[in-house]
Amino acid sequence: MKHLLSIADLSADDIHRLLELTDHMVEISGRPIPKVPALRGKNVVSLFFEDSTRTRTSFDTAAKRLSADTMNFAVSSSSVSKGESLRDTIETIAAMGVDAFVVRHRSSGAPEMITRWTNASIINAGDGWHQHPTQALLDCYTIRTGLNRRDGFDGLRIAIVGDIRHSRVARSNVQAFAALGAHVTLVAPPTLLPPSLEGWPVEISHDLDALLPELDVIYLLRVQRERMEEALLPSLHEYSLLYGLTEARAARLAPHALVMHPGPMNRGVEMVADPGELPGSVILNQVTNGVAVRMAVLFWLLGSGADLSEAP
Amino acid sequence: MKHLLSIADLSADDIHRLLELTDHMVEISGRPIPKVPALRGKNVVSLFFEDSTRTRTSFDTAAKRLSADTMNFAVSSSSVSKGESLRDTIETIAAMGVDAFVVRHRSSGAPEMITRWTNASIINAGDGWHQHPTQALLDCYTIRTGLNRRDGFDGLRIAIVGDIRHSRVARSNVQAFAALGAHVTLVAPPTLLPPSLEGWPVEISHDLDALLPELDVIYLLRVQRERMEEALLPSLHEYSLLYGLTEARAARLAPHALVMHPGPMNRGVEMVADPGELPGSVILNQVTNGVAVRMAVLFWLLGSGADLSEAP
Amino acid sequence: MKHLLSIADLSADDIHRLLELTDHMVEISGRPIPKVPALRGKNVVSLFFEDSTRTRTSFDTAAKRLSADTMNFAVSSSSVSKGESLRDTIETIAAMGVDAFVVRHRSSGAPEMITRWTNASIINAGDGWHQHPTQALLDCYTIRTGLNRRDGFDGLRIAIVGDIRHSRVARSNVQAFAALGAHVTLVAPPTLLPPSLEGWPVEISHDLDALLPELDVIYLLRVQRERMEEALLPSLHEYSLLYGLTEARAARLAPHALVMHPGPMNRGVEMVADPGELPGSVILNQVTNGVAVRMAVLFWLLGSGADLSEAP
Repeated sequence: MKHLLSIADLSADDIHRLLELTDHMVEISGRPIPKVPALRGKNVVSLFFEDSTRTRTSFDTAAKRLSADTMNFAVSSSSVSKGESLRDTIETIAAMGVDAFVVRHRSSGAPEMITRWTNASIINAGDGWHQHPTQALLDCYTIRTGLNRRDGFDGLRIAIVGDIRHSRVARSNVQAFAALGAHVTLVAPPTLLPPSLEGWPVEISHDLDALLPELDVIYLLRVQRERMEEALLPSLHEYSLLYGLTEARAARLAPHALVMHPGPMNRGVEMVADPGELPGSVILNQVTNGVAVRMAVLFWLLGSGADLSEAP
Repeated sequence: MKHLLSIADLSADDIHRLLELTDHMVEISGRPIPKVPALRGKNVVSLFFEDSTRTRTSFDTAAKRLSADTMNFAVSSSSVSKGESLRDTIETIAAMGVDAFVVRHRSSGAPEMITRWTNASIINAGDGWHQHPTQALLDCYTIRTGLNRRDGFDGLRIAIVGDIRHSRVARSNVQAFAALGAHVTLVAPPTLLPPSLEGWPVEISHDLDALLPELDVIYLLRVQRERMEEALLPSLHEYSLLYGLTEARAARLAPHALVMHPGPMNRGVEMVADPGELPGSVILNQVTNGVAVRMAVLFWLLGSGADLSEAP
Repeated sequence: MKHLLSIADLSADDIHRLLELTDHMVEISGRPIPKVPALRGKNVVSLFFEDSTRTRTSFDTAAKRLSADTMNFAVSSSSVSKGESLRDTIETIAAMGVDAFVVRHRSSGAPEMITRWTNASIINAGDGWHQHPTQALLDCYTIRTGLNRRDGFDGLRIAIVGDIRHSRVARSNVQAFAALGAHVTLVAPPTLLPPSLEGWPVEISHDLDALLPELDVIYLLRVQRERMEEALLPSLHEYSLLYGLTEARAARLAPHALVMHPGPMNRGVEMVADPGELPGSVILNQVTNGVAVRMAVLFWLLGSGADLSEAP
């Protein structure tokens, strides 16, 4: 594998192997000196056309634990703003010696387009509404660990709740959860579902309350204020009444059920209860696992051995 | 000690030990390769809600000399601006694996509040008008070295001149200088003194000229243009006439007296003479010592040995 | 040599030695782990008063390959904006321990002025219309390699085409190319030539088409939209008709001729053909060589041995 553009490019086996590799990376991250020389001399460049401190930092931390060098391009402050073409920018940075670009872009498909212009590996860190594959992998890892499901998600019931339509996280996670065998239900007002769900391996529900007791995982998406302005939502308050995770709703979850969110949370909207008080909340574990998963992805793409047994 | 929030948390003994540790760090900083592996694998994150290139860079340099990894969050450009709560931001960054946060915030008490949300060490790099403890420590170190006062400041006469009211530097330094035994006089127009000085171990003077010959240290504070707009000062020119360090005033200082300023200087306002021409100016020594003091603080909080004899 | 301010400070011999040193750095850059400890513990600070992601990144990459520490000051976001003098800023940063400043500034002569205020080495990374010496060196290296001219440029015919008047690249390159023995022709509309060319070792031409067949190198400069607003150009389109490198013009170049551009390109203006389709284009080689040349310059200024045989 050279690039990580979409969960759709990974087989269930690939996902399993990446999650096993993540186990190694979690072990490394827990050492007193959480650093290995695996990627020494490799140059990992983050190219963020959309701001995202948390994702950028997570990749940065991952790269540093593997001893790679890192550079950040906040594209707003770079020559791209001088009217240079995206291709020229990529080719120029690549010519300085880049092993991987971590790309976030508001347009679906931009990371794939970039693969044509450089020999470096491209990692999609979020493109439009399309994909965010490392988010899906870290979420799989968090469920695998949190529910002790090393062999797959057969029979697990996962609800993804919120603005599915505009969510690359939903698209990536549906594919990854389904590939591992989970039963996925999308819960959203009709205006926040995609126009067509043909080919999505999911069920749809508009009644969160009916679902709650049978869920193993409830995965909340961020609802953005903009949706209200676009008239897709009557009000955030009404959204919250029907789909927000209140204490009352949380109390109806099974005791083992996990509560997840990709962050940043809109407290009082999709997250009404205090997640710090919910025993099933693994939201901060997702963040912690994100670093380890990204270490695994970087090692997979840039490490010398295709043979993962050479993992550090 | 886990955090450094305020000079008030340190005993005179603590301060002395930190200054002795700083001696080690000065020695390290003078080596051809000024780097030791003491904090390898530690992650030091600067979280600046107010811009301050010089303080951030000083901590950054200190962390790198101890081989720690560093990350910078200029909060204006991070997700905090998306309306996420401060607590969620801190918890999220901390979940990626942070050993210390270096925090600057416009609100007094913000660094202390952050200690409740993370297991990482918090170093206050300036909070509102409240505290800036590493500034006070570097100033103590500069006086200790400049006046050869390793055993304390008994009998030293120090004047702090300027906008005491709005100054976290003044608050921190008064506590630190007094803890080490110095006699501190505040010199300022009444509008730039705090409403109450109860409990401050200081004398007040409005007559800088009378004091000059007996001072061992004159410590100038930056006077900000805003004070004029707030009608706390009739004009910067008038301030300068009464409290600015002119060549004439500098000539009346004792030959051994030190001239100090936390920077950045307002030339022509509080600093009228050219400090490059003042034999007693140790303003650049303060900057140099700042790196060593911050190395000492980072090592104290994050180094493996509570026993400082293990200093690198 | 302590500073690199201008090509005019270098003898032809100096240039040759720097290009030979660059050969070492190219070799290092091609290793599986492109890193040597030559500058470990050195602190290289980039101080960019004008934004330039590509130049800053090139220096950054170069410094990291030599294991130096790097820090970036985007001056707009630093204390300089608080009205502190340039001198105070430099002296303050230098006091934290800086071995070299890489300076870009809109005023000609700013880097030289800075040499008076610090003991650190100063590398001019572009000052006004004056000089950009590492650009000239990387261009020389690219020609030396591309045309296999290790011993000098005697008899080579080089045309520099475009906005000579406002170009520090043109000024630096004319000096460097001429020092190595090339025959340089400037090609530009009269409004984009300097008011006087006294002392420039060049010929002038306004007829690009006549020159094309005899050139060994065509060096295109970026033409900025602002020139049209300043009425120095009737229109970018007209410029392009007379001076742009079209496919037709490229076809009339000698087969061995090199096409060069310092970037970023204005496609459709000075660069009409697709450089990816031009066999003589070495534009991305220039970028790659830029890192190696900057490694050589950093090593020359900061390495322990004046004796370059100690090159890593």
